[in-house]
Amino acid sequence: MSEVAETRGRRGRGGGGAARRAARSAVSVETAKYIERNIPNLEVLNDEALDIIEKNAETILEEVGVNFVDNPEALELWKAAGANVDGERVRIPRGLARELCKTAPSKFIQHARNPERSVEIGGNNLVLAPVYGPPFVRDAQGGRRYATMADFEKFVKLGYMSKWLHHSGGTVCEPTDVAVNKRHLDMLLAHMTLSDKPFMGSVTEPSRAQDSVEMCEILFGKEFVQENTVMTSLININSPLTFDSIMMGALEVYAKNNQACIISPFIVGGAMAPVSVAGTLTQVMAEVLAGVAYSQLLRKGAPVIFGAFVTSIDMGSGAPTFGTPEAAMITYGAGQLARRMNLPYRSAGSFCGSKLPDAQAAYETANSLNMGLLAGVNFMLHSCGWLEGGLVADFEKFVMDADQLGALHGLAKGIDMSENGQAMDAIREVGPGGHYLGCAHTQANFKTAFWRSDLLDYKPFETWDEEGARDTRTLAGNRVEKLLNDYQQPVLDPSIESALREYVANKKASMPDSFT
Amino acid sequence: MSEVAETRGRRGRGGGGAARRAARSAVSVETAKYIERNIPNLEVLNDEALDIIEKNAETILEEVGVNFVDNPEALELWKAAGANVDGERVRIPRGLARELCKTAPSKFIQHARNPERSVEIGGNNLVLAPVYGPPFVRDAQGGRRYATMADFEKFVKLGYMSKWLHHSGGTVCEPTDVAVNKRHLDMLLAHMTLSDKPFMGSVTEPSRAQDSVEMCEILFGKEFVQENTVMTSLININSPLTFDSIMMGALEVYAKNNQACIISPFIVGGAMAPVSVAGTLTQVMAEVLAGVAYSQLLRKGAPVIFGAFVTSIDMGSGAPTFGTPEAAMITYGAGQLARRMNLPYRSAGSFCGSKLPDAQAAYETANSLNMGLLAGVNFMLHSCGWLEGGLVADFEKFVMDADQLGALHGLAKGIDMSENGQAMDAIREVGPGGHYLGCAHTQANFKTAFWRSDLLDYKPFETWDEEGARDTRTLAGNRVEKLLNDYQQPVLDPSIESALREYVANKKASMPDSFT
Repeated sequence: MSEVAETRGRRGRGGGGAARRAARSAVSVETAKYIERNIPNLEVLNDEALDIIEKNAETILEEVGVNFVDNPEALELWKAAGANVDGERVRIPRGLARELCKTAPSKFIQHARNPERSVEIGGNNLVLAPVYGPPFVRDAQGGRRYATMADFEKFVKLGYMSKWLHHSGGTVCEPTDVAVNKRHLDMLLAHMTLSDKPFMGSVTEPSRAQDSVEMCEILFGKEFVQENTVMTSLININSPLTFDSIMMGALEVYAKNNQACIISPFIVGGAMAPVSVAGTLTQVMAEVLAGVAYSQLLRKGAPVIFGAFVTSIDMGSGAPTFGTPEAAMITYGAGQLARRMNLPYRSAGSFCGSKLPDAQAAYETANSLNMGLLAGVNFMLHSCGWLEGGLVADFEKFVMDADQLGALHGLAKGIDMSENGQAMDAIREVGPGGHYLGCAHTQANFKTAFWRSDLLDYKPFETWDEEGARDTRTLAGNRVEKLLNDYQQPVLDPSIESALREYVANKKASMPDSFT
Repeated sequence: MSEVAETRGRRGRGGGGAARRAARSAVSVETAKYIERNIPNLEVLNDEALDIIEKNAETILEEVGVNFVDNPEALELWKAAGANVDGERVRIPRGLARELCKTAPSKFIQHARNPERSVEIGGNNLVLAPVYGPPFVRDAQGGRRYATMADFEKFVKLGYMSKWLHHSGGTVCEPTDVAVNKRHLDMLLAHMTLSDKPFMGSVTEPSRAQDSVEMCEILFGKEFVQENTVMTSLININSPLTFDSIMMGALEVYAKNNQACIISPFIVGGAMAPVSVAGTLTQVMAEVLAGVAYSQLLRKGAPVIFGAFVTSIDMGSGAPTFGTPEAAMITYGAGQLARRMNLPYRSAGSFCGSKLPDAQAAYETANSLNMGLLAGVNFMLHSCGWLEGGLVADFEKFVMDADQLGALHGLAKGIDMSENGQAMDAIREVGPGGHYLGCAHTQANFKTAFWRSDLLDYKPFETWDEEGARDTRTLAGNRVEKLLNDYQQPVLDPSIESALREYVANKKASMPDSFT
């Protein structure tokens, strides 16, 4: 029995609020269990190369150091831990950061309000979450436009309806029609009420992280939140080698409340890191070592994820590029470094630079999704819906990518070597020149034998042509519409829902709108 | 020095016709060297699983056997080798086929008329060849239509102009306006005169295979052809477990002339093989064991490739499906079996079921291309231009896929761990909060640091929008036009060209047109 199943059992037996709520969510749609890989990771670096990168990362931490900006408390913590602090520069003696990182757990459970949807992050698992952060949305009808809260809610519903998506995500798009200092409240309320999958907290201000914790205390119960992880939030490092006080303030809130954070260098190679793969891996390793070590100074055992958001730059235009071989090599290499540190790993996603959900978008995305699976990623943010270098959350691409995530589930299964898998009786039965369509083995297995897209076109040319010769984007537009029409809100205890709404209303009333 | 380079040197020193011809081809476009992988293969099966599959394959050969249809000579050869022959059924005692396969070379050089373009097939190498076999072509202007010889010639020119394509292929599309019994002559003439990359011979009749050999004797010289491999041709097995006399007749011609063949099960899983991955791998292994063993009965040491064309079936519509996880697992597993047999491996390609070069086509194709690289494929037929389950050769998709093949070259390089790759000076120079755009390491390396598409859009949104908001297909259409405009025929000794034209004219005059 996996840890998640055990916890589910305990919570079920306990007859707590969450279990009762889950029982009422009987109309909820099917969501696949998070991926448990039964295939090996692709290891592109040998031990000697990994040793060099780790040694170099330690050299950077010791000689160059990292900056903790506007953050005297962090500097005090580092000084007490044995680092050399000079102004905002923290130089970390060789071995210290790695030693501090050892108290971070190698995997953890993030609980969902529906225990069936809880996920275990780490080990051989892969948890898929949607795109995060775009200020714009696009669909075939409306074109490209600033995102609103109405768009946000549609994406949360689509995520809830997507079988292969395990996680509701965070800022699926920026609801630009809500004040910056209040939109986190509306976003969390949407994740909590429109979906029952796990979600992310706010990181744009330490106070907003605190609000996220408090809303979770209403949803899950105060005691449950203190004992369990119910949010995974995204803490970006300001690469190269800089930790700003806002992100660190959010990390501090989450770590002290035992909530998980992805600690993630944000790198456009050639701008925020060297143009070389090994150089970028060295910097990623140094930054994650420092960031994870700091999380453990805040609270030993705080759950964290080794993050690596890495893309390359087009030296012609200066634009970030996606689905490139160099980004793939960094993603593979960083996965090996994360496993070396015994930490869960976040990377990859539905990355593309294309302006439209066209063939370019799909090539780049497929390159990145495949690489993410084979690199041993444990938490894949941006796994669907990303467009135009992350500036746009695209409705059609969201369901196109979400469909492809089903293929990752199929790949991860590996090869069934049971007697049924070996199919010797079928080969004997059919023999030379026959066909397998009607044989007993096919009849017994065909329903589950092959992954099948819920979106792509498999029809004969003539049928497809008669039906309007629709391309993928058109099929996806139809699917977006269908999913939103079919959507039914998962049941939530009305007293909890009104407490959440009251909390949000009070918070909003307590401060003027700010759009900065 | 690689074997190819050595041979190039020998031929250069010899001052033979090929070397002189190459010297005159000075205007030829840049073609990348075939890929030499510096990354590991993904191994999805452990030794125990491989043992089971091989043991099961031997059991199938021994108990069920294979059919050699309409081929008394083959039955005689098998009988003499120790197989049990009963009618057309050949049952092969355990171990016999595997033993016979041992004389097949683990790698071989296929010579091009321009020695710079010769390829080594096997080992860690990957040679990329275009789509093969579609009766239809498509482009954005003309839509879907029957292919003609004019289309064929355009594809050969595009292949010649494609930097990342190492091989000119064979039946890039079926020139349906030329008689079936004569089109192989026109196709070979096009490959020989419009390109200087290596190519494939005809397999639709043993006599056409013989014509292919004779045309090569004109192009390369008779002696050279007898001593060297100058064609790699595609011999499909009629799965399950059936070897027809036409394909075997072509194999016989090629094997006896020391020319290479891909011996390739042609499998739509669920129809021509069991619905399970392990069952399909077992059948693939049995079929290749029998086919390769037969090639070695024809001529010990004849160069052959372990082929696996495998796709799955949509049990809803009966249509073949592409880029699916099950096909990927078979491709990975078959690669391991090929390496176990110490044979070069052919699989994967720009496979898709989509009717248009849209996002579906690109997802499916990218899934298959990535898997092909990581499965250790040595010869990738269909690596660009495939559309609609292979019914259509698409002009735009040809250049779209050919561009993505550049990414495979980048991935295969692996990670540069040199001092320059480690970039420690750059990290020291830039430090916390800086940027790498102008640093010395970036300046020294940016031109070669990142793979760059020659096709995809990397422009800022505003520029892209002003320029007409073009999608990938539109960009690709422009590129097709540009490549065909820029095309210059590679120089060929005029006496050889007229000898080839005379041979074709005489052959055509010697028989009436046949369209069956």
